[in-house]
Amino acid sequence: MTTADASSPTSDLSGTRRSPFLQACWAARTGDRPARTPVWFMRQAGRSLPEYRRVREGIGMLESCARPDLVAEITLQPVRRYGVDAAIFFSDIVVPLKAIGVDLDIVPGVGPVVAQPFRQRSDLDRLPELTPADVPYVDEAVRILVAELGATPLIGFAGAPFTLASYLVEGGPSRTHEHTKALMYGDPQLWSDLLDRLARIAGAFLRVQVQAGASVVQLFDSWVGALAQDDYRAQVLPHSQTALAAVEDLRVPRIHFGVGTGELLGAMGQAGAEVVGVDFRVPLDEASRRIGRDHAVQGNLDPALLFAPPEVLTQRVHRTLEAGRAAPGHVFNLGHGVPPTASPESLQHVVDTVHAWKPAAG
Amino acid sequence: MTTADASSPTSDLSGTRRSPFLQACWAARTGDRPARTPVWFMRQAGRSLPEYRRVREGIGMLESCARPDLVAEITLQPVRRYGVDAAIFFSDIVVPLKAIGVDLDIVPGVGPVVAQPFRQRSDLDRLPELTPADVPYVDEAVRILVAELGATPLIGFAGAPFTLASYLVEGGPSRTHEHTKALMYGDPQLWSDLLDRLARIAGAFLRVQVQAGASVVQLFDSWVGALAQDDYRAQVLPHSQTALAAVEDLRVPRIHFGVGTGELLGAMGQAGAEVVGVDFRVPLDEASRRIGRDHAVQGNLDPALLFAPPEVLTQRVHRTLEAGRAAPGHVFNLGHGVPPTASPESLQHVVDTVHAWKPAAG
Repeated sequence: MTTADASSPTSDLSGTRRSPFLQACWAARTGDRPARTPVWFMRQAGRSLPEYRRVREGIGMLESCARPDLVAEITLQPVRRYGVDAAIFFSDIVVPLKAIGVDLDIVPGVGPVVAQPFRQRSDLDRLPELTPADVPYVDEAVRILVAELGATPLIGFAGAPFTLASYLVEGGPSRTHEHTKALMYGDPQLWSDLLDRLARIAGAFLRVQVQAGASVVQLFDSWVGALAQDDYRAQVLPHSQTALAAVEDLRVPRIHFGVGTGELLGAMGQAGAEVVGVDFRVPLDEASRRIGRDHAVQGNLDPALLFAPPEVLTQRVHRTLEAGRAAPGHVFNLGHGVPPTASPESLQHVVDTVHAWKPAAG
Repeated sequence: MTTADASSPTSDLSGTRRSPFLQACWAARTGDRPARTPVWFMRQAGRSLPEYRRVREGIGMLESCARPDLVAEITLQPVRRYGVDAAIFFSDIVVPLKAIGVDLDIVPGVGPVVAQPFRQRSDLDRLPELTPADVPYVDEAVRILVAELGATPLIGFAGAPFTLASYLVEGGPSRTHEHTKALMYGDPQLWSDLLDRLARIAGAFLRVQVQAGASVVQLFDSWVGALAQDDYRAQVLPHSQTALAAVEDLRVPRIHFGVGTGELLGAMGQAGAEVVGVDFRVPLDEASRRIGRDHAVQGNLDPALLFAPPEVLTQRVHRTLEAGRAAPGHVFNLGHGVPPTASPESLQHVVDTVHAWKPAAG
């Protein structure tokens, strides 16, 4: 891709064009690193913020995701407070499933709970395509946000097929994903059909957000680290590719992230995303080697460091920034979501430390 | 070490001498693989067995661990039922902590819960040395078992310092180990002192079991996969070495295991164990490469395969056995504990498949 190509990232004429975040996302293609490393946090919009807990009071999670005014307010809160380099749309990976009619709820302290877990072929009938008309509140909230955010890019997101399948098949959160894997191992055709449905739903959900104005997308495969690489490649990767390909023509950078994916990083780099998110178990220089130098990386400070003394936190932020220089582009983030009990002061300290950092010469 | 040396494993004159399990454990030293691959299962004694649920009815977990007759019965149940190649002592990693006076309980459906979590230096006073007199019921149960088991080796075990510390610091099970890591990052000296205490307790607990007749030990560092390698090497490995060194002079093979340890396998191989246990995320041939050819490996079938159809289970057992040939010795096991809902039939199928397997020539 050359800069003369109309599809080039550098031809983007929107207000976010000079965003260090977008520059870092495209850096493996353009060869241009931003002047400073951008930073945002997974789950930055949410439970750790007192202003979030205030506006959510008495309002259920799924209800709040369907109210554009509330979604916009919650999405903006961390941008206002921390000065992060990107906003992430406030929603949940099960919102598109709820929108197409799956009977589920998000139970406080538990997570998504599905009334009738996915068990057999006839359950596919409960997973029709997602159309923009199913999620009008998403379109509306994104439009409000893009107008408010100005030069700060908005990240749209979706859950990846494996992680969505785990919630549907287990009926809720699981540490072991036993039923999910049993289906994958035991009935590969039904598994493939299920993941194809979920990939289309995830892709359509990303598309709605980008068409309303989101500048970047992230596909969360939070639980895929439960798989060995062979199984991932054969039974998951093709479907993650389908989900990410759904927004390819819209020319926004795509980020792909999972937890505990040290063994999968090379394969995840082939899913179609420009940026691969890395958890805290693998240093970014080694992660970039596994992913390939044709991708930017995102990550990967251990969230537990938010509970460490400030001087230790500073040192570890610096170490992460140094390791990130091995990749062609680096978006600073945690290696997992913000813990609910993290203090906003710690997160502010991270943002300020990242923004103040100047790489050593050479 | 030569076979003429009185300390050589081959000079062991006990009834377990010809055990394929012990042969596999020592194989990296002796160069002799057993005629067939041995198999046992982590958590084979326990919740998945109806005969276990029967004898445990109305008896709390910690109470049952303190009754030698019950411990012996439960330990023997899977040996009788499945014909596995080793018994593992029925206990819990928190039993030695309870024995030295830490106020804790094992709550059904939750796990170990510590009344007063470890928070500060003065809490070290609650962690005195463990003496054999603190656990007379362990000595008694092991002696009963060794007499009953005949040629089948008994595995003694303990929790490794990091995993014990996580329970003590968090006050119970944790997915994120936030407080534990905050202590590790924030007060390295107190952390080191805590882990040293726990290493001595774990080592003493292993020693009691071996001196009563256990032929092998396993040190479980179940949650250590939550750490990056640098932190593991600097702040955990030396203490795991202390725990394993406590039984070095007793000349039993030592197994060291954790979950999600793909990044740590090389370092874990340096903890002093002859065998490194591997979870299901890394194939055994690759795991053996990381650990080093001077160690046998143990593992690593994904426990979720116990819920797959028998033909898939057979195929995956074979694949695991083939991969295990890359290591100098291989003890077949799951990549994690037996799930409570696994059917005894599936486990029997695994044992029979492992025992019937003949490696392809070459």
